[in-house]
Amino acid sequence: MGDSLRVAIAGLGTVGAGVVRLIDTNAGLIARRAGRPIEVVAVSARDRSKDRGIDMGRFDWVDDPVDLARHGNADVVVELVGGSDGPALALARATLASGKGLVTANKAMIAHHGLELASAAEAAAVPLKFEAAVAGGVPVIKGLREGAAANELTRVAGILNGTCNFILSKMEAEGRDFADVLAEAQRLGFAEADPSFDIDGVDAAHKLSILAALAFGTRPAFGSVAISGIRHVIAADIAEAAALGYRIRLVGIAEAGSNGLFQRVHPHLVPMDHPLAHVTGSLNAVMAEGNFVGPLLFQGRGAGEGPTASAVVADLIDIARGEYGPPYAMPADALADAEPEAAGERRGRAYLRLTVADKVGVLAEIAAAMRDAGVSIESLIQRGAASDGSVLVVIVTHEGPERAVAHALDKLSGSPSIIGQPMWMHILG
Amino acid sequence: MGDSLRVAIAGLGTVGAGVVRLIDTNAGLIARRAGRPIEVVAVSARDRSKDRGIDMGRFDWVDDPVDLARHGNADVVVELVGGSDGPALALARATLASGKGLVTANKAMIAHHGLELASAAEAAAVPLKFEAAVAGGVPVIKGLREGAAANELTRVAGILNGTCNFILSKMEAEGRDFADVLAEAQRLGFAEADPSFDIDGVDAAHKLSILAALAFGTRPAFGSVAISGIRHVIAADIAEAAALGYRIRLVGIAEAGSNGLFQRVHPHLVPMDHPLAHVTGSLNAVMAEGNFVGPLLFQGRGAGEGPTASAVVADLIDIARGEYGPPYAMPADALADAEPEAAGERRGRAYLRLTVADKVGVLAEIAAAMRDAGVSIESLIQRGAASDGSVLVVIVTHEGPERAVAHALDKLSGSPSIIGQPMWMHILG
Repeated sequence: MGDSLRVAIAGLGTVGAGVVRLIDTNAGLIARRAGRPIEVVAVSARDRSKDRGIDMGRFDWVDDPVDLARHGNADVVVELVGGSDGPALALARATLASGKGLVTANKAMIAHHGLELASAAEAAAVPLKFEAAVAGGVPVIKGLREGAAANELTRVAGILNGTCNFILSKMEAEGRDFADVLAEAQRLGFAEADPSFDIDGVDAAHKLSILAALAFGTRPAFGSVAISGIRHVIAADIAEAAALGYRIRLVGIAEAGSNGLFQRVHPHLVPMDHPLAHVTGSLNAVMAEGNFVGPLLFQGRGAGEGPTASAVVADLIDIARGEYGPPYAMPADALADAEPEAAGERRGRAYLRLTVADKVGVLAEIAAAMRDAGVSIESLIQRGAASDGSVLVVIVTHEGPERAVAHALDKLSGSPSIIGQPMWMHILG
Repeated sequence: MGDSLRVAIAGLGTVGAGVVRLIDTNAGLIARRAGRPIEVVAVSARDRSKDRGIDMGRFDWVDDPVDLARHGNADVVVELVGGSDGPALALARATLASGKGLVTANKAMIAHHGLELASAAEAAAVPLKFEAAVAGGVPVIKGLREGAAANELTRVAGILNGTCNFILSKMEAEGRDFADVLAEAQRLGFAEADPSFDIDGVDAAHKLSILAALAFGTRPAFGSVAISGIRHVIAADIAEAAALGYRIRLVGIAEAGSNGLFQRVHPHLVPMDHPLAHVTGSLNAVMAEGNFVGPLLFQGRGAGEGPTASAVVADLIDIARGEYGPPYAMPADALADAEPEAAGERRGRAYLRLTVADKVGVLAEIAAAMRDAGVSIESLIQRGAASDGSVLVVIVTHEGPERAVAHALDKLSGSPSIIGQPMWMHILG
């Protein structure tokens, strides 16, 4: 058995403590599988005295995480500080510059700076790995980089945020409204005190942009992800979708084609016979479609101590084995510069929910706007008025250009018959 | 870009032609991802003149596949001849002995001779890879060997035979009987003329034993897989299972614990909220449960030209990148020698279907046998008599030792009230 792979860990929150616990618990197994032991030698965190339920006193303690980059005794730094910039990025840069490998779970940093870091890792001929940055314990980075590597991938789509999926699943199972379920998720620790990164889709977009770069061999392009979250999904949307044979999921979807690179995170109606419809609770799942393999599905726990630690240590085992290469499968400077797909070029089916005043002529006005914009209506459902006198109108369109739907909604905006903002969700095809 | 990885292919059936087609179609992409081109240099098959829809004349033709092992111009041999022994095994041995890498889709050969071949590959320091041997295009070998490598795995369970899943799904969707659907599957090319390897569970058992060795770090033990297939599943079983909230699937399951290594391929009742219940048609899926990651699911197309070629070429890309190591994750001589779990030690819930004569006292006889054997009945359903006067009795037991169920069926065997063999299926927990 070879020499230990010596690891320094920056950040001892849930995941950092989990990595230490995993390496302790499965040490013998890891050494057998990796061909050599993996050994934590140094750690850094904000609060040295905090009880993390596990002995950190046996490791060299370093106050400034960035100092781990120059730690004399470490081969690899595990960055679990978090945040796209600041100390995490400083540590990542310094680690690669000093010729050490880097493993990170930091999706925000990889989404924003992954290309720079990959170039630096390749220049220094050291590993950079980030399996834990997407879908927690699910080996989907590896699945795309290696498992599906023989394929031209046409699409990658996934449920990438466990908090949103937990909330949507609970709304669905219990018929409750968003705000109510969010508050419960916060009490249970499934949602942050400030949940906006999760529920507004930013976290899923970070992950989607990482997957897209891997899947299509394109430069990471977080800035061109069209993002909207689940804040405006109401219980009635879920009930209407169910009646139509769909579940509502926050789906990140990326496609590369002749129109350019398309990336969107949006609540979608997912048909019941689609595998993503059966992803419930806080699970994550990713589908990829290849020109030879067809559709692949990877599913599992997308967050939490154990799953995230599992992905971090899988990366360390790959490094210990010497089984690693360019982070994005091909050298960073070989990634293509994909233009974002021009807006409005897409076609699809849409779900529209409008809250309208209960008065004569409203349906005619809506129907006329759809007709004039060239939107073909597959079904329209109007339920009786709510206690406040408002009425929900739900429309499912036939397949057509998204531009036409946007045009119809433009026509209706400002109409005194329409109350609040219409909800527009895409139907996953 | 580096020198080509030069490949010789033995066997030009559906998969072999698919590998050539994939390498042709995605050549540029593969070279970018692998860091160098992958180039077919030589081929061998039984019939040189057969039209395979693709030009094989540009490759060096070798009549005896075993000669590819000594082909002067090849770095890696792809074995697609099939069969556990014979020319496939001769070629595999000769390839590794001559210091070339080996990629194979041959589950029967790996199930029977994988350990010997892994030892030979390790001794020669050359790659041996077999992603395509299990679940076709789904990267589940990689998922266990690498993605889940940080975990102690407690269980691996999967739908590993697309033919069986196609037949069961069709029986379920259309209410038809086994023989009828099998005949249709044969007409459509989803089942072989001699379907016994598939429908009797042998093919799934080959794959299960490969997964178990990877998951648990144990020596492959195909001989200790308990195997039964789907031949005796009748339409009424599927209907009764559906009424109880289950689907019937041929599930391969392996567990490693203090009682030893347990491996079984058997039709199971799968609860509707279990991911394997939603694997329909000819799809394959594998679940693995790790002590940190929790449950992981991998799903996709388990057979056919495109998916199998995708897995073969993924292996070639790993080899071209130099990202490979011991085939079973750890050196072959470090695999543990697991005792098979002693029979009857398992506990679980059972589904029993008995065909009985329609006469007084039969139910009392069955109930007494169950009671005397210590089997606790959760539900018992008796439907009215069929036109031949026989009656189906379906029993679902509470959790208990399998030994007790076997004992009860023993007591009933030979009873003049029981017609034919009872059907016993386990309920997936």
